[in-house]
Amino acid sequence: MRKNFGVKTWTYPQPVFIIGTYDEKGVPNAMNAAWGGISDDDQISICVGENHKTTANLLQRKAFTVSIGCAEQRVACDYVGLVSGKDVPDKLERAGFHAVASSFVDAPLFAELPMALECRLVSYDLDSCRLVGEIINVSAEERILNEAGEIDLEKLQPLTYDPIHRIYYGLGSRVGHAFQDGKEIK
Amino acid sequence: MRKNFGVKTWTYPQPVFIIGTYDEKGVPNAMNAAWGGISDDDQISICVGENHKTTANLLQRKAFTVSIGCAEQRVACDYVGLVSGKDVPDKLERAGFHAVASSFVDAPLFAELPMALECRLVSYDLDSCRLVGEIINVSAEERILNEAGEIDLEKLQPLTYDPIHRIYYGLGSRVGHAFQDGKEIK
Repeated sequence: MRKNFGVKTWTYPQPVFIIGTYDEKGVPNAMNAAWGGISDDDQISICVGENHKTTANLLQRKAFTVSIGCAEQRVACDYVGLVSGKDVPDKLERAGFHAVASSFVDAPLFAELPMALECRLVSYDLDSCRLVGEIINVSAEERILNEAGEIDLEKLQPLTYDPIHRIYYGLGSRVGHAFQDGKEIK
Repeated sequence: MRKNFGVKTWTYPQPVFIIGTYDEKGVPNAMNAAWGGISDDDQISICVGENHKTTANLLQRKAFTVSIGCAEQRVACDYVGLVSGKDVPDKLERAGFHAVASSFVDAPLFAELPMALECRLVSYDLDSCRLVGEIINVSAEERILNEAGEIDLEKLQPLTYDPIHRIYYGLGSRVGHAFQDGKEIK
């Protein structure tokens, strides 16, 4: 038997994105957003409500970064989703995040978050809360790269978010090979 | 030091989506797509190339389903990404997938894939390959529900795809609680 849940925005594994922006004075901010993903061959789409400091910032600066929430920074990633930069001016300092200017867009990267997409604002729709960014660059700290200089997921340890139970999961073990395992059937 | 990779569509954890459609004769099809996610408060966006049988099907039927690729069905999920319904008419049978009509949209669910989003076609853009669906319903087999009747990620076991190394990962262990762990700092 199948149970129907109605209209829900549940896809798994759901990511934990940390959006980085500068305000009009150049003060960096970070917020946690879970609803989003790649939507085009060079774009990312994320649902971001209009009342966030982040939304005002990215509309003004026309840019943002999307860092991948990772297990090592779980507490800080959760924290930046709990408080607003409007209420806590030293939010980033409290989170322990150190902002570093992106070389590609007018937005900050965070030294503690080892992988990020650097994006130029394409559009933001108030009604649907849909933020779209053109991916200008993806960057990663050397500490999460393998010997071939590629991003190593097992070093990155991206978080998976379960919005139903508000639980963060870690990355599991390797279970198979894409474009290969299916050949058993083929 | 940070390494720059240029324009890449890498976000983690990346999902494994199995798109279900009917063709003009009502023959069900399934394909594997990894680039996508929630893009609005009731929409999902996925990159799907124009030459797929799936694309022709969903443009005609104005509907599709998105099942969550899971560890138990890893081989079959990989297989439906390796061959086209154009070349292998009995693709679903070979994969071991049994199509069941959605009660909400004109597209098939698959008995072996325990969770799916049932979507009405909103738009498809040839240039960008961006498919957008309105989520009409989310359904799940009882075998992946917990005692409260909610979807249990540990029973679903969603796959994570690593496009750089073409590896499938399983779900890891619980590492924390959202909207709670960050209170340590607050």
